[in-house]
Amino acid sequence: MTARILSGKPIAEAIKSETAEEVSTIETAYGFRPCLAAVRVGEDAASEIYVGKKVEAAAEIGITSEHHHLPADVSQDELMALVRDLNTRDDVDGILVQLPLPGHIDERSILEAIDPAKDVDGFHPVNVGRLSLGYPSLVPCTPAGVIEILKRSDIEIAGSHAVIVGRSNIVGKPLAMLLLRGNATVTMCHSKTRDLPAITSQADILVAAIGRAGFIRGEHIRDGAAVIDVGINRVSDKDSAREVFEGEELEKRIAAITARGSTIVGDVNPKDAVAKAGAFTPVPGGVGLLTVAMLMKNTVAAAKQRRKL
Amino acid sequence: MTARILSGKPIAEAIKSETAEEVSTIETAYGFRPCLAAVRVGEDAASEIYVGKKVEAAAEIGITSEHHHLPADVSQDELMALVRDLNTRDDVDGILVQLPLPGHIDERSILEAIDPAKDVDGFHPVNVGRLSLGYPSLVPCTPAGVIEILKRSDIEIAGSHAVIVGRSNIVGKPLAMLLLRGNATVTMCHSKTRDLPAITSQADILVAAIGRAGFIRGEHIRDGAAVIDVGINRVSDKDSAREVFEGEELEKRIAAITARGSTIVGDVNPKDAVAKAGAFTPVPGGVGLLTVAMLMKNTVAAAKQRRKL
Repeated sequence: MTARILSGKPIAEAIKSETAEEVSTIETAYGFRPCLAAVRVGEDAASEIYVGKKVEAAAEIGITSEHHHLPADVSQDELMALVRDLNTRDDVDGILVQLPLPGHIDERSILEAIDPAKDVDGFHPVNVGRLSLGYPSLVPCTPAGVIEILKRSDIEIAGSHAVIVGRSNIVGKPLAMLLLRGNATVTMCHSKTRDLPAITSQADILVAAIGRAGFIRGEHIRDGAAVIDVGINRVSDKDSAREVFEGEELEKRIAAITARGSTIVGDVNPKDAVAKAGAFTPVPGGVGLLTVAMLMKNTVAAAKQRRKL
Repeated sequence: MTARILSGKPIAEAIKSETAEEVSTIETAYGFRPCLAAVRVGEDAASEIYVGKKVEAAAEIGITSEHHHLPADVSQDELMALVRDLNTRDDVDGILVQLPLPGHIDERSILEAIDPAKDVDGFHPVNVGRLSLGYPSLVPCTPAGVIEILKRSDIEIAGSHAVIVGRSNIVGKPLAMLLLRGNATVTMCHSKTRDLPAITSQADILVAAIGRAGFIRGEHIRDGAAVIDVGINRVSDKDSAREVFEGEELEKRIAAITARGSTIVGDVNPKDAVAKAGAFTPVPGGVGLLTVAMLMKNTVAAAKQRRKL
């Protein structure tokens, strides 16, 4: 079989357009626009790109945004003071602290200082706890995006067996809770799992979120499964690219490595997935595109919840 | 094979005796004993027994305890005021609100009002979140007890495939997080799981926490698996008892139903478990006995953490 390709773009566009409509409804009814405050520390190139994309998406949707850019040597106290200030400001609905933070900053205490009601990344223990308990909460953007892809692609969650490879706090564990809430049977696998293919090949929905380029192969995939690739790995070696891609796609990737020094590869071998899966999210162009859209959705949700609209 | 019976009693006794030693060390070094405040509302007979056992265990171990018994018609505000008072009192280390609360009380808001540092039941979203995130936290007593049984019975968690049947906030979900932290591959099943025996029969460690007497049968159990029965079901019908027990045990159970109107049955058929499992926790006399011991351990842990000892 040839897998149906689940492109993230139309789904991300649909979510952004629904969110823009909500913003416009809120503005008409209550005279304000939700506001997202992004905090970035230092000169990490990837962080600059990510925050830029988030600010851009906010503008596109009608969400007000602020970009607080602090120097790499900012002290813990100064950063904490900014977070506290954003917590108390009534016009700020969402606070996003772009990770990673420089090594001298205690990341956990900064994230725990964010008001849970404004925690649009859903990383605060209170939101993590509420998600597990089944209460309303702000949910981390990437796993929330995976759920949107599944639902909007008519892939049934209830009654399915979902297998997640990778148990990170940002993807694997919150996604397990979301799929469980959707009445899937959920298996969590990781680097210590014995005989991984025997387990993953039982999955109706297989999610790869381990950070190893092309790690999930044909032997891991059940015929007809929905394979969701959350991995974003930078590959700079042409031979590695040859293992993962073929034909026209390979030529494109080789050209990218030649031109820019690297290409982005998911955790799943795309040749194998296309040959064996029923549906497959490509990398790039799949789950990654949902993350920013879900952040916008979370910002509006936070605005509505905390202002009790 | 005949399963090794994992009796809860010696394990609970060992934990209580270790905890008593810790209390005595704390008293010698710092001149105080940890204090547990139990809150009970109304006249629920089971609650009275449970709180009684907890207060008794505290006395045995040297933990100071208080039993706050409020009338069934206490208002939300009055109950909340008591919780807030216990939060602010520096001599109180642990707060336990016995569930269920009467229907007119908003249980969730009461549990969320407890200071997470004193939340010895581990039900507060902050503690649930920290558990999921892998941070130090107060962990719900029953799943924590299951981990103690496994560890102290030399049943290896790391690398095993643990299957949990039941996804409650009190047992299934926190236990999944604890087993995952112990490097097990973890599958969460529930009432919507398709072909349950096909999944449970892959388990090295099978945990039943669904609240259905004798539901887990031979077909669900892998040869040699460790079967942990968390169920506590009251059976008052002799024919149901005959399905689950045989021989001397059956006679005892029939006698119990005749004398007291009911007998306690787990979620696992004990005949099948004894015949097929490698190890099995009986009901009664298994996991249930750990819960009170773990509450004592949590109270001492809370005292040490919040007082930074």
